[in-house]
Amino acid sequence: MSQLQRITINPSQLQESQLLLTPQQQHYLLRVLRSRDGDKFIAMDGISKWWLAQLIGEQGQILEPLEVTTELPVSITLMVALPKGNGCDDIVRCSTELGVTCILPILSDRTLLKPSPQKLERWRRIALEAAEQSERAFVPTILEPVAFRTAINECASIHRYICEARGNYPHLTTVSNKFSSEIIIAIGPEGGWTDQELEIALESGFQPISLGRRILRAVTAPIVALSLIAAACEV
Amino acid sequence: MSQLQRITINPSQLQESQLLLTPQQQHYLLRVLRSRDGDKFIAMDGISKWWLAQLIGEQGQILEPLEVTTELPVSITLMVALPKGNGCDDIVRCSTELGVTCILPILSDRTLLKPSPQKLERWRRIALEAAEQSERAFVPTILEPVAFRTAINECASIHRYICEARGNYPHLTTVSNKFSSEIIIAIGPEGGWTDQELEIALESGFQPISLGRRILRAVTAPIVALSLIAAACEV
Repeated sequence: MSQLQRITINPSQLQESQLLLTPQQQHYLLRVLRSRDGDKFIAMDGISKWWLAQLIGEQGQILEPLEVTTELPVSITLMVALPKGNGCDDIVRCSTELGVTCILPILSDRTLLKPSPQKLERWRRIALEAAEQSERAFVPTILEPVAFRTAINECASIHRYICEARGNYPHLTTVSNKFSSEIIIAIGPEGGWTDQELEIALESGFQPISLGRRILRAVTAPIVALSLIAAACEV
Repeated sequence: MSQLQRITINPSQLQESQLLLTPQQQHYLLRVLRSRDGDKFIAMDGISKWWLAQLIGEQGQILEPLEVTTELPVSITLMVALPKGNGCDDIVRCSTELGVTCILPILSDRTLLKPSPQKLERWRRIALEAAEQSERAFVPTILEPVAFRTAINECASIHRYICEARGNYPHLTTVSNKFSSEIIIAIGPEGGWTDQELEIALESGFQPISLGRRILRAVTAPIVALSLIAAACEV
């Protein structure tokens, strides 16, 4: 079972076996994920076609088409503020079952946990087990935890959402008809985002959304968000 | 914070302060819940009005209107096959956060756990804490575990669904436009329902549905189902 990064391409980027990457995709693969020459990744057209590809310099090369039935037709990155205790274990496990593509743990202003390198290894092992159990084709990528501001700056995508329990924001399902091939969703820690964090995210183009009228725990909120996104994309 | 059973009424059942219960509601309150004369319950019209009511003989008496903002406008009963270990703790906690009305633990053919009376007390305490944390107005009812066949026979409602991971069934969201004021959803144990259980449920009028293309753990499936039902009813 492969732990491969996934990018969504436009059919016009394909020229025979060459895959012309956009500057955003190059930034994501080379800078954010630190991929190197020869590293493999998945290219998908966001509808039904999947290819195994390889990074050659700053461009991609298509290696072979893939048959995939249990993966979502979109790429979902979950930016999640680290909850206390072992909460992140549950988030990684459940998010993987629900089809997440990439998990980016966030050190937010209210994050108490300073994770050890062993934690990252543990989350990657949990993701692998959960991908196998849920019969997924790929294992989600678990990135190294980064500071909130770094994450906000690095995550470039038109469809970026930040969940906020308080405040009268539109429900996630009311924006689901706008979901495109790449979705980034940010979920806060116990006690929520600070006002300043929310402000920074909104200034960077994140759209504030609600997950319903009740206050969800930090561990429950990602499961709810991914359930709704997966259902909207899969049905 | 009150742990009160909730029933959905039709405005025509209200005659001044008298509430004329249907035979089904009488069966549910008196037989399934074993309510007694003088026991309080919540009556709701399934849209926006809520009343505190009291059982007098086999009928209801309206005591006062209630103001409620964090409760779902529907009554959801989760019939859940007991998972192994402490899995039911998580199910009770998350389901409560998501607005469940009643949880009926099921002893299915593949249930390994034989819960002690202490377990039931523990689940009720978890439900109380989760209701407070999520700022709900009411605490869900946790019923005593019963055998699968008993549960199927006792649960009378037009909107009954049974989740099944294998098989090509319609996704829960495709039937969400049919949700009415009372929904019963049954979710199986690790390894799923046995063929015989599924057959019995379908014969009794349960509609088989899917929660997506990946195989979810017994603990994750109820959270996904309730996320989708809550969003469909609340948005």
